[in-house]
Amino acid sequence: MTNTIDLAVIPGDGIGPEVIAEAVKVLKKATQDEDVQLVLNEYRLGAEHWLATGETLSDETLAELRKHDAILFGAVGAAPGDTRIPSGLIEREMLLKLRFAMDHFVNLRPSKTYPGVPSPLADPGTIDFIVVREGTEGPYVGNGGALRVGTPHEIATEVSINTAHGVERVVRDAFRRAADRPRKKVTLVHKHNVLVNAGHLWRRTVEAVAAEFPQVSHDYLHIDAATIFMTTDPARFDVIVTDNLFGDILTDLAGAVSGGIGLAASGNLNMDRTSPSMFEPVHGSAPDIAGQQKADPTAAILSAALLLEHVGLDAAARRVEAAVEADIAARPQLSGPRTTAQVGDAIAAGVS
Amino acid sequence: MTNTIDLAVIPGDGIGPEVIAEAVKVLKKATQDEDVQLVLNEYRLGAEHWLATGETLSDETLAELRKHDAILFGAVGAAPGDTRIPSGLIEREMLLKLRFAMDHFVNLRPSKTYPGVPSPLADPGTIDFIVVREGTEGPYVGNGGALRVGTPHEIATEVSINTAHGVERVVRDAFRRAADRPRKKVTLVHKHNVLVNAGHLWRRTVEAVAAEFPQVSHDYLHIDAATIFMTTDPARFDVIVTDNLFGDILTDLAGAVSGGIGLAASGNLNMDRTSPSMFEPVHGSAPDIAGQQKADPTAAILSAALLLEHVGLDAAARRVEAAVEADIAARPQLSGPRTTAQVGDAIAAGVS
Ligand SMILES: CC(C)[C@H](C(=O)O)[C@@H](O)C(=O)O
Ligand SMILES: CC(C)[C@H](C(=O)O)[C@@H](O)C(=O)O
Repeated sequence: MTNTIDLAVIPGDGIGPEVIAEAVKVLKKATQDEDVQLVLNEYRLGAEHWLATGETLSDETLAELRKHDAILFGAVGAAPGDTRIPSGLIEREMLLKLRFAMDHFVNLRPSKTYPGVPSPLADPGTIDFIVVREGTEGPYVGNGGALRVGTPHEIATEVSINTAHGVERVVRDAFRRAADRPRKKVTLVHKHNVLVNAGHLWRRTVEAVAAEFPQVSHDYLHIDAATIFMTTDPARFDVIVTDNLFGDILTDLAGAVSGGIGLAASGNLNMDRTSPSMFEPVHGSAPDIAGQQKADPTAAILSAALLLEHVGLDAAARRVEAAVEADIAARPQLSGPRTTAQVGDAIAAGVS
Repeated sequence: MTNTIDLAVIPGDGIGPEVIAEAVKVLKKATQDEDVQLVLNEYRLGAEHWLATGETLSDETLAELRKHDAILFGAVGAAPGDTRIPSGLIEREMLLKLRFAMDHFVNLRPSKTYPGVPSPLADPGTIDFIVVREGTEGPYVGNGGALRVGTPHEIATEVSINTAHGVERVVRDAFRRAADRPRKKVTLVHKHNVLVNAGHLWRRTVEAVAAEFPQVSHDYLHIDAATIFMTTDPARFDVIVTDNLFGDILTDLAGAVSGGIGLAASGNLNMDRTSPSMFEPVHGSAPDIAGQQKADPTAAILSAALLLEHVGLDAAARRVEAAVEADIAARPQLSGPRTTAQVGDAIAAGVS
């Protein structure tokens, strides 16, 4: 019997299509000797699609997307100066809408140093941690409002919503992952001395869940202090669990210190498997270099490895990761820059 | 005629009293040849004071504090494991209460590289920027709440409040400061693609105020991208203007990359001068090294220089800064660590 893995592919805007083409190339190579058949369904969504059709993400498209086993996502977003697209529209009505509608409550973002990859840090040490970022609540819920807009009496609010349900499931996921890792340590990052209500819910939840995992240790850092340690001692981290906004900030910083956002992969995971999970590079659509074959597809390819793992193809995932590691290790010896496709070709060729 | 400068001094907890003693030493030296008389009034406030008396910050103390020309503040906060003090109580009911009650709408935090001070960055470049952090609204307003606490149905909220009044005055302050600096550039940091209501108020305000300052250029970064640039190219920044929470995060990171939080000074400024401004090192009370004369008083001393500037003693402020620079430049030649008092003595001696 051959299993079918039915993927939705959303290349998106800017460099999205270029990096996703390479991720697909590698996915095909990695699964060709497995007893699986890869079915790919491309969806055109993003800023360009909105300009052409007016659709951000319709209920029909959302329903279609739900039928797949997983989603591979490139990047979305208009060029900064493009005034035809209301700022943030595509991000909110498409990307965040997907994360919320699919209940992607674990936004998993691993960081690790690869030998030979330069870090802006003088001495990054051996970085190998994961950030488990909450993906369905916090300040991302869009529950703010505004009054007397455009007048001297304008008031604009943003509401962060945090629920026991939402916090507990992501904290438990972080502890589960920590239990499977050698160092078995969870660090909660928040700002409970100021954001008291949300902060105390997070802290109490961590204490309660920690009691179920006696083998896992845990500590706490305020978000401001966490950014300091991210530059002075990032090797100290094992599993970080944090809210949607702090996770957004911390994972860009983590990507930077561990060798650049060109290597940062992510999975938007529905761990209850009630909807497809979605895999995307942390980087954006980089309109300034789009269409020039200059983008590094490694983050997209590593996101595809997370996808393979999520659909149960652990061995294939490990082979992709090994091919990426081998390619990165060989980079210092290259005579010059490679095109996006050449990087994809090299990594695909390395998938044994 | 001799002017009197009437200061309230709040040494606080942990290393607060040690670093403030040195800041006072330097203040005295810097003003001794000026035509001013320095009057110092010490207030005991903080975690230890709360344990002894139950007072965080009474209306009476607040009324007393209002009578002074400025406040010099050390640090507050209990030792992490100290369960006698509800977490965040002193921070909120004392430190933040002061910032809000005194309407400290500009939280000014300069960052600069001093030759010889090691940075965790391999190549920090020449850092010389200021962060103008909003100090009286945003997610710091304490307007959240919680429902069904401790049950599986708990909901905890945090509300960020942003007003045209609050945003405009701090944005205008940032542009004024930029206009006085060689590079004349303002960078707004926010997350307007997600926090739409607050973000758009900030953006529109920046555009409106920018029109009054044609000589000042401005750009925009999302907070996540800003943390990347803080590690890859911090020299690009001139004046950053941002909200209370993003400013909290970004200034700790800025302190780290520019040589450590031991050098990071801050002023909580009421630029309308309707209440005294307050000057404090960005670092905390560091209970682990308290009372051991190990703390670096430089951040407190640089905060005192900001104080001198704010009360109009610009020349004295410049002399303190020059003495700090000379002391820092001489540090690599030192034979061993100095006590907190020895650093203060050296800087005071260097104030010409
Ligand atoms: C594009 C934006 C909405 C998104 C986020 O804030 O989550 C991005 O920064 C990310 O980290 O995936
Ligand atoms: C102690 C805390 C309340 C404070 C803040 O969050 O503003 C501190 O981190 C700071 O930056 O001054």
